[in-house]
Amino acid sequence: MTSDDLTVRELGEFGLIDRLARVLNGAGRDPLRPEASGPIGIGDDAALWQPTPGRREVLTTDALIEDVHFRHRTTSWHDLGWKALAQNVSDIAAMGAVPTRAFITLGLRPDTRVADLEDLYRGMSELLRAYGFELAGGDTVSSPITIISITVVGELEGEGLRRAAGQAGDLLAVTGSLGGSAGGLAALEAGLPGPGSMGSDPDGWGLAAAHRLPSPRVAEALALAQVGVRCGMDLSDGLLGDSGKLAYASGLSAVIDIDNLPMSDALRRRFGAEEARHMALAGGEDFELLVAAPPDVMARALALVAERNDVPDIEIERWLRPLTVVGRLEEGPPGQVTVLDQHGQPIQPPRSSWDHFRQAETRS
Amino acid sequence: MTSDDLTVRELGEFGLIDRLARVLNGAGRDPLRPEASGPIGIGDDAALWQPTPGRREVLTTDALIEDVHFRHRTTSWHDLGWKALAQNVSDIAAMGAVPTRAFITLGLRPDTRVADLEDLYRGMSELLRAYGFELAGGDTVSSPITIISITVVGELEGEGLRRAAGQAGDLLAVTGSLGGSAGGLAALEAGLPGPGSMGSDPDGWGLAAAHRLPSPRVAEALALAQVGVRCGMDLSDGLLGDSGKLAYASGLSAVIDIDNLPMSDALRRRFGAEEARHMALAGGEDFELLVAAPPDVMARALALVAERNDVPDIEIERWLRPLTVVGRLEEGPPGQVTVLDQHGQPIQPPRSSWDHFRQAETRS
Repeated sequence: MTSDDLTVRELGEFGLIDRLARVLNGAGRDPLRPEASGPIGIGDDAALWQPTPGRREVLTTDALIEDVHFRHRTTSWHDLGWKALAQNVSDIAAMGAVPTRAFITLGLRPDTRVADLEDLYRGMSELLRAYGFELAGGDTVSSPITIISITVVGELEGEGLRRAAGQAGDLLAVTGSLGGSAGGLAALEAGLPGPGSMGSDPDGWGLAAAHRLPSPRVAEALALAQVGVRCGMDLSDGLLGDSGKLAYASGLSAVIDIDNLPMSDALRRRFGAEEARHMALAGGEDFELLVAAPPDVMARALALVAERNDVPDIEIERWLRPLTVVGRLEEGPPGQVTVLDQHGQPIQPPRSSWDHFRQAETRS
Repeated sequence: MTSDDLTVRELGEFGLIDRLARVLNGAGRDPLRPEASGPIGIGDDAALWQPTPGRREVLTTDALIEDVHFRHRTTSWHDLGWKALAQNVSDIAAMGAVPTRAFITLGLRPDTRVADLEDLYRGMSELLRAYGFELAGGDTVSSPITIISITVVGELEGEGLRRAAGQAGDLLAVTGSLGGSAGGLAALEAGLPGPGSMGSDPDGWGLAAAHRLPSPRVAEALALAQVGVRCGMDLSDGLLGDSGKLAYASGLSAVIDIDNLPMSDALRRRFGAEEARHMALAGGEDFELLVAAPPDVMARALALVAERNDVPDIEIERWLRPLTVVGRLEEGPPGQVTVLDQHGQPIQPPRSSWDHFRQAETRS
């Protein structure tokens, strides 16, 4: 047996914790020998930290379940690690906060290969480095199916973003482009050429990357909150359903101009304008931000994004994803969403949002 | 179809959230309409709170997986709700902290009965009320097996308890009695008379209660930390294994006097002295505290417990579980545990501690 075939059962719980800690830290650390005192409690019964004075704490928790949220056949362990953390970080960004620490509870089959778990931790480690926070604890248990349950804690300075802070007359805007994740999933399911020949289908691979390795909009949320945006959430279940949730929380109706939805050229080229619009409207897992603000605040936000991105020397940390106005909030039945075509005529939306129990069992 | 047969799939995600919120709050609350501002963010993308100035935050996370940690055939949904929270609260107590908020991620089969989930939430609600904290968020997803993943956050005032704070010469002590949970599981597996005729097997039912509805030692941990105890953890995997973990974290060896282990009369009567001792030494899930302290500090702790419990008018909030010295920490190979018989002679411990991947698949 090569070391690549070593399973979790053979290595045992504490050997596994040690191996995974090495992936995260580069070097070995003894997870069973915590510090006797000090602010951090890794290796103790619970994690321990000193909150930053004057800031509030935010917390989100979410789970990925094998054959419900992913399939090992189509999702690599590396991407699973990135995406499991990314979807939680997106919820932190949706509050206008920054992530500070993550906790992971893994349910693992005893015959899971240790090498696969190291790939999972490499994916998580890349996201942790990209967003500047750390894994601070968790739990590993035996399970008949793979389960990844994540908790991410963050800090909020100032007011932040709330779903219920929308007002009649607010403009609705989204960051980045929509439908990329749905398009990437469709491209992956239709079959892409092997990674060695990405050049033969760059659109497909670009969309697949949006689906596999989403980048939560932490910097964008901070910038928007700074210029006075108070209402927002992240797009996990699709603009159609999520705009309804934001509108409902604010006691208002939403209007979406379907012609204004930002989409990548790759999405349009691959699926045609109409199907691309449907994906942008109803596709899930884009993990972009949806925000609402009065026109003057939104104008400041648009100006800020333009100013930050229009610099001779592009410094990566200044760059923000574009912001696009896609509709507005108005008085009306709470949670109602009206979709208008390019002539301002209401159209029947193509499909509704995601319900975890009522729709098909598998999302991606 | 009666309403008792209503399933999660039929009710849908948002109807379910509403029904479960009613169990927790007594009255209905609209979980999709959060407040626009203020310190609490229920219904938003993440929970939000203002930490208490001068205190540190603690966090623990743990999961219960069907057919690994419980079986629906032998564990009621109510008890599952209590126990899932209790084992996390015990980790918070182990730090000398108090729980402040809980988050639950549920993986549910679409055919799960809504009435069963209401029972689960009743069990959780009883524990939340008993320990004075609240459910502040979570996530519900579809799953082929039942999964209950819990995160509990708490606050720590002062130094608290740490595994690594033990010193050579410290006495080891435990709260309450040991082996009750293992005895209760054995009694349940052997078959108990129906709840209607508990009187015909009071010992069995008493032990079963210790297994089904453990009471984490939050008040005891606070009292011990107050008199200067600095080293502690909770007993989830059995005294033998857990004392080794505490000793290892402190860079020391542990000695346990098997004759000193506190056990209930019910355990001794039902299983005989020898098997009862084995259960007290190696049985898991007692959720008592294991603490280490220099003899003078331990004397203060023993006096405090005696004083608090020796009052003419027993006020329930003053009462603390008894504290029993069971051994000591000394210089030696880190993590080594020596078990001594009543003559001070080393004996071979009956079995070792729990490893989540190496031992049998089912704990309870």
